[in-house]
Amino acid sequence: MEGRQLAEFFGGDRFASGNGMRVVEVRQGFARTEMQVGPGHLNAVGIVQGGVLFTLADLAFAAASNSYGVLAVSCQADITVFKAVSSGRLTATAEEICRTRKLSTCVIRVTGEDGELVALFKGIAYIKGTSLETGMKEAG
Amino acid sequence: MEGRQLAEFFGGDRFASGNGMRVVEVRQGFARTEMQVGPGHLNAVGIVQGGVLFTLADLAFAAASNSYGVLAVSCQADITVFKAVSSGRLTATAEEICRTRKLSTCVIRVTGEDGELVALFKGIAYIKGTSLETGMKEAG
Amino acid sequence: MEGRQLAEFFGGDRFASGNGMRVVEVRQGFARTEMQVGPGHLNAVGIVQGGVLFTLADLAFAAASNSYGVLAVSCQADITVFKAVSSGRLTATAEEICRTRKLSTCVIRVTGEDGELVALFKGIAYIKGTSLETGMKEAG
Amino acid sequence: MEGRQLAEFFGGDRFASGNGMRVVEVRQGFARTEMQVGPGHLNAVGIVQGGVLFTLADLAFAAASNSYGVLAVSCQADITVFKAVSSGRLTATAEEICRTRKLSTCVIRVTGEDGELVALFKGIAYIKGTSLETGMKEAG
Repeated sequence: MEGRQLAEFFGGDRFASGNGMRVVEVRQGFARTEMQVGPGHLNAVGIVQGGVLFTLADLAFAAASNSYGVLAVSCQADITVFKAVSSGRLTATAEEICRTRKLSTCVIRVTGEDGELVALFKGIAYIKGTSLETGMKEAG
Repeated sequence: MEGRQLAEFFGGDRFASGNGMRVVEVRQGFARTEMQVGPGHLNAVGIVQGGVLFTLADLAFAAASNSYGVLAVSCQADITVFKAVSSGRLTATAEEICRTRKLSTCVIRVTGEDGELVALFKGIAYIKGTSLETGMKEAG
Repeated sequence: MEGRQLAEFFGGDRFASGNGMRVVEVRQGFARTEMQVGPGHLNAVGIVQGGVLFTLADLAFAAASNSYGVLAVSCQADITVFKAVSSGRLTATAEEICRTRKLSTCVIRVTGEDGELVALFKGIAYIKGTSLETGMKEAG
Repeated sequence: MEGRQLAEFFGGDRFASGNGMRVVEVRQGFARTEMQVGPGHLNAVGIVQGGVLFTLADLAFAAASNSYGVLAVSCQADITVFKAVSSGRLTATAEEICRTRKLSTCVIRVTGEDGELVALFKGIAYIKGTSLETGMKEAG
């Protein structure tokens, strides 16, 4: 799959797309996702729910770790949140910092409109070895 | 606030409630959340998106770390996913395992219908010291 | 290998043993390590160095994740420290909470003499599939 | 304290220095540590023990998060190991990526002689607010 196809493929993430997140760029070992914060993204104290930041980053992580067209499934992730946000555009930028035969590790930066760091996410995916299309068919 | 009020308060988490998650129990240092997996919770390969598991756990974490009525804001969380799920009921059970003057640490277990462990989440919240109601007003 | 042999095998961890740590119990999916805090374990502000707590936990993690006699190599670990200690006996208890074909996940509790929780460690090991003895020969 | 004084101060970390690790550079929000791998750093399968990588990174983390002369105590750290090493020089480079009033978050890269990434460490320290010298006296 090429970058455009991969972006489309991950556009099929219903949880992410249903919550207004989309993949805007994918190339080998890299991906970028975006969203516009709305009232539906807030938690009980009126700030963006941690799960929103996590999901936006996780979508970029999935796209980057699967960017070679080989199925990789997330097994571990951590997120550190630096700043409470309640509006504006959020961007998550994923870079694969290490890829071994079986594991892909990515670091994802979530930034606000001003480019300031909102959260840092690190994820480890287990590389299954089957192609993305096959993985999808098996799961479906 | 009492347990019932706290559960109602966290019912005000629009991202979590908008995605079908609810707080079913809160008491000091403990909380439980639930959801029913639907098609809107799936990712591009047809399994529950990592952000869904994270959000369900994060909601339980928020309820448990705020269960004394004092505002605590999540600063760090990690999640390890053991099992791909694509349907059924999910439950997240949060236990505060340590509370110092400034930090609350909770461990949250996400389980499936059969009680099997689906994911393990650990979160650290910074205790602001203001009451939950005040925190809400300031944020709003 | 049996429990006793495994404990001996991990006694061959020169960094851990050189710093006064030892494996006191190993059985399938479980391990326990111990140490006595001495002046050589302290950091610049006079409390037990984070690396000491990590290493004691990591030794228990290695023993538990390798307790089936099949080589597993740690790829990810996190530690949360709850309490500053500067003396006494420390114990780390590892439990494997999930084992798939390729990954072993363990939670390790580090406790002080009074049984109070000092630190919580979570580790993920990648299961290589070769036997422990073979792994040792290849590395040596 | 100035950079040189800070490096000397963290030279007082007995666990790190007793295991051949030293602080080679400290400036505000940055620190670098180094060590030469010896037989005493190896684990039971003949590779550098995870606790060695952790401690080298943790020392750099402590120096960077305390680089303003204000006591900060580590509360959470995670490490991802990419590569098994058994010899050579190791360097840990800490950068503080976020500092709020109460929390310092640093990312530490551990690299081998060839500059290749061996491990990635992320740490969060709680800023106590007292000066480093006072913190030391109280602990002593």
